[in-house]
Amino acid sequence: MVKQAPIAVIAGGGDLPGLVIRSAMAQGREVVTIAIKGEADASLSAFNPVELGWGQIGKLFSTLKSKGVRDVVLIGGVQQRPDFTSILGDFGTMWRLPRIIAAVVGGDDHLLVKVAGIFEREGLHVVGAHEVAPELVASLGHVAGPKPSKKALSDMTLAIEAVDALGRLDIGQGAIAVNARVVAVEGAEGTDAMLERVAALRENGRVRSKGAAGVLVKCSKPQQDLRLDMPGIGPQTIRKAAEAQLQGVCVEAGRVLVAHRDEVERLCDELGVFLYGCTRGEEAEA
Amino acid sequence: MVKQAPIAVIAGGGDLPGLVIRSAMAQGREVVTIAIKGEADASLSAFNPVELGWGQIGKLFSTLKSKGVRDVVLIGGVQQRPDFTSILGDFGTMWRLPRIIAAVVGGDDHLLVKVAGIFEREGLHVVGAHEVAPELVASLGHVAGPKPSKKALSDMTLAIEAVDALGRLDIGQGAIAVNARVVAVEGAEGTDAMLERVAALRENGRVRSKGAAGVLVKCSKPQQDLRLDMPGIGPQTIRKAAEAQLQGVCVEAGRVLVAHRDEVERLCDELGVFLYGCTRGEEAEA
Repeated sequence: MVKQAPIAVIAGGGDLPGLVIRSAMAQGREVVTIAIKGEADASLSAFNPVELGWGQIGKLFSTLKSKGVRDVVLIGGVQQRPDFTSILGDFGTMWRLPRIIAAVVGGDDHLLVKVAGIFEREGLHVVGAHEVAPELVASLGHVAGPKPSKKALSDMTLAIEAVDALGRLDIGQGAIAVNARVVAVEGAEGTDAMLERVAALRENGRVRSKGAAGVLVKCSKPQQDLRLDMPGIGPQTIRKAAEAQLQGVCVEAGRVLVAHRDEVERLCDELGVFLYGCTRGEEAEA
Repeated sequence: MVKQAPIAVIAGGGDLPGLVIRSAMAQGREVVTIAIKGEADASLSAFNPVELGWGQIGKLFSTLKSKGVRDVVLIGGVQQRPDFTSILGDFGTMWRLPRIIAAVVGGDDHLLVKVAGIFEREGLHVVGAHEVAPELVASLGHVAGPKPSKKALSDMTLAIEAVDALGRLDIGQGAIAVNARVVAVEGAEGTDAMLERVAALRENGRVRSKGAAGVLVKCSKPQQDLRLDMPGIGPQTIRKAAEAQLQGVCVEAGRVLVAHRDEVERLCDELGVFLYGCTRGEEAEA
């Protein structure tokens, strides 16, 4: 059997990089871990990472080449938000571009594609976390927690419709419908902040319902390059959905990552929040 | 000259009822002011209002008939959000319905029309504030403050597109675009809360720009019955737009109320925030 070339995981913050690395290793692949200084989680030290700062893009490419890497996964959050002008002329700029663009310039799809292009011009192949670790991706249908009620399925359909319209305009990836009404739509604030907003609307009575009601829907944008900025949920999403008194969380199957799936499923059961995988434009059915 | 029948203004909270009453009086119309107890502003006492509580709908109709009223304006905010079940069977329910529905049941257009129908079955004619006081409605084109830059006009076009898509789904009436990106979309939280969110996103660096950038767009829903729940802006909107470091505010001409227009225009000049009247689907031009 011919040995596969090692895969590089260029790791920003959060849990996802470690999950992707473990998954690739479990499949018998050799993994070169590149930990971005100031971003990557300390737990990655278990994988003997090469630590590189923003300015060390040249060293990044020489490292990858010396290890014989062909496939590269870019994964994890990037928190550092330096002033755009202060890093111009720094070759490291290009790696920051996706997040900088997202924070500064606007609709980022073209530039994300350009970032991938820069790697590809170096002879590397950018692959998505969902390709390396398909078990991290949401599956179709009812996944965990209680079975969705008819009302929840109808809220789900409504929120899918909203996310679909927003995604086409390159705006957001999430929406929350409660009792046949879309009450929150995700912009630059992110999913957690949107869930907190709905929790507040429930508390101050602007969104009323007896007991749990409503669904968070999270999808990829239709034009999204999943290799570069795939949306994800995790245990925190389920906790915040419970705090917002929602009945469930619905993610686009195959196009949204579910981190710590075991814990997510355990929390779904414990907190009574369902997890469901849908397709965009679907009329959800139980 | 035949004397016009008096008009009734059924006043909830805020400034708009007083503005509508003054405007009608300035046109020489006799006004019967009905102040909803616990909702109407104390300043309405200048108009010798009939004060009525939620339960006094029978008295409302007898008052209106005894005064020879034919036209009724329903205007102002309703803050009381009693539990839906606690007022079932109370005839006053019907008046609360628009807001209760908005808070509890979902897309409210059909029920608002039903509320108007109840008045009409009593022989009354529900008219919009914009019909009685057309000077309160936003006009087309540049209204006040600095002239919008090309970039602002392009943000405006983008946000109009978002509001248009949302309105068709009966979701919201407002959106904010900054530097060619829609960063916030209005759900149940309302325009002020959305502006506060963007101010926070500017502060924490998730939405970056040097100096003022971006535009708030507020439109009616395309299917909206303007007689019953016309959206509005006022001085507070301009102040919060300045705090969110926006360049301007754009409202749908003829379909959004501008309360305290003199003060709004003064604030626009003082704070450097433009006010612009657009049409839905317009490609804004300077």
